[in-house]
Amino acid sequence: MVFLNDRLVDESQALVPVSDRSFLYGDALFETVRVHHGRLVLWTPHLARLLRGAQALGIQPPATADQILEIARTVIQTNALKHGLLRLHLSRGSGPRGYSPRGADSPTLLVTAHPSPELDVRASPSWTLVTSTIRLPEGDPLAAFKTASKLPYVYARSEAEARGAHDALLLNTRGELAETTSANLFWFDATGLCTPAPEAGALMGTTQAWVQSLAPRLGWTCRELRAPREAILAASGAFLTLSSLGVVGVSQLDGQALPHDPRLSRLREEFMNALPELLSG
Amino acid sequence: MVFLNDRLVDESQALVPVSDRSFLYGDALFETVRVHHGRLVLWTPHLARLLRGAQALGIQPPATADQILEIARTVIQTNALKHGLLRLHLSRGSGPRGYSPRGADSPTLLVTAHPSPELDVRASPSWTLVTSTIRLPEGDPLAAFKTASKLPYVYARSEAEARGAHDALLLNTRGELAETTSANLFWFDATGLCTPAPEAGALMGTTQAWVQSLAPRLGWTCRELRAPREAILAASGAFLTLSSLGVVGVSQLDGQALPHDPRLSRLREEFMNALPELLSG
Repeated sequence: MVFLNDRLVDESQALVPVSDRSFLYGDALFETVRVHHGRLVLWTPHLARLLRGAQALGIQPPATADQILEIARTVIQTNALKHGLLRLHLSRGSGPRGYSPRGADSPTLLVTAHPSPELDVRASPSWTLVTSTIRLPEGDPLAAFKTASKLPYVYARSEAEARGAHDALLLNTRGELAETTSANLFWFDATGLCTPAPEAGALMGTTQAWVQSLAPRLGWTCRELRAPREAILAASGAFLTLSSLGVVGVSQLDGQALPHDPRLSRLREEFMNALPELLSG
Repeated sequence: MVFLNDRLVDESQALVPVSDRSFLYGDALFETVRVHHGRLVLWTPHLARLLRGAQALGIQPPATADQILEIARTVIQTNALKHGLLRLHLSRGSGPRGYSPRGADSPTLLVTAHPSPELDVRASPSWTLVTSTIRLPEGDPLAAFKTASKLPYVYARSEAEARGAHDALLLNTRGELAETTSANLFWFDATGLCTPAPEAGALMGTTQAWVQSLAPRLGWTCRELRAPREAILAASGAFLTLSSLGVVGVSQLDGQALPHDPRLSRLREEFMNALPELLSG
């Protein structure tokens, strides 16, 4: 069962008109939230990012923040979702033909449940990455929002699959590290922990923000910086953060093996220990 | 009536599942083709661009080129469309959740008709432009295709509307001229006609290509080049090419008036005279 617009419907009945602007132009926002023992992980920053994006794009959400949480809970309960992902999708809805959003005043809200194995980052394998030919535009005013115009990410993911890698590393148009198609990036250098600065063009992630806030408590510095791809190859270790899997090591970039920094194991433990505090719903 | 997948259906019955990747990720291509006296303008290059994009993205079109033309004709006839636009939309269809296109093997083809006034570029008003905060990534491997991941264009168009302009000028991340949200760009300098080089990141247009091929016959040079925004302000005239309207002058950029180059009037005449040769279907 999925929630579409104002009701729960069977997935096979969940249909949208072909005039929906999310179908025509990717004119929509979404969030993918981890569900752990039936509860939502880092719900508040996910919803906040969705609502900030809606405001920036001029999409009026068809429900309040409290109502959206209630809808999310209902979808989890109806599907008896214990472990997996909850996906929120907010489209601008239908309107006149053309890019102008004028006259599109009935947004579409879709909430779907996707079962997957229980989250356990201690068991997560490391990922291999390859550098994509896609370049993110640095300074992009839309980079702060998780938009549904994701064909560049689909294309980059295809490049990774064609080369036998788990995911693709995305640089920006200046050749600086940004993110992967599905995750944020961290690495350890001589000073401590590093992650790309927002200006580089990556979508700032909820798990990424959590790691950044945790670092000082572990006695690590954490710097946001603009760095070239070579910073990963020179690092003592690199890892990814993503809602679906938490913290995942990077074992290889473009065929070159990367070392394992023992601090990553510590971080994984901290993440699993902190998980109960990150739950809501 | 619209054509969806394998049949004509009433527009109110034209629905797609919410799992369609065009809805979820903008994972689709489209074309907007002018219809003039019931016939398609520059059909061949439009369809060729769609099919090139499908090949690059690994989307298998559900119909041959001949069949797609037959479908287009049927939609025009069924709707008794004399003047307007025909829109083709090819989505990768439904598949498993996530960016990976693996397992999405049933593309969605949508063909819709949109009436509008008869094409007459001699009567076209000039447009005002403002420069968008959106920057196109230069060297983008997807720039050659008209993808459905168009939120940056929607956003730029909103910026233009908020500032009372007809359209937004898009520069690339190096600050070079690329295109507008809906049109290709030309300007006259001391050497002749100029248009942004493909490497700048613009989608190369079908009407743009026609103007480029016409220029030598009018005795004009036409150069593709990488140029800053200031090239427009220094030009003796600038204009736009777009399928829906043909050739449109630019009267203003960011509030600064631009001169009218008399060669634009000549070009408009040539375009209207050539129109019968550009028709098929």
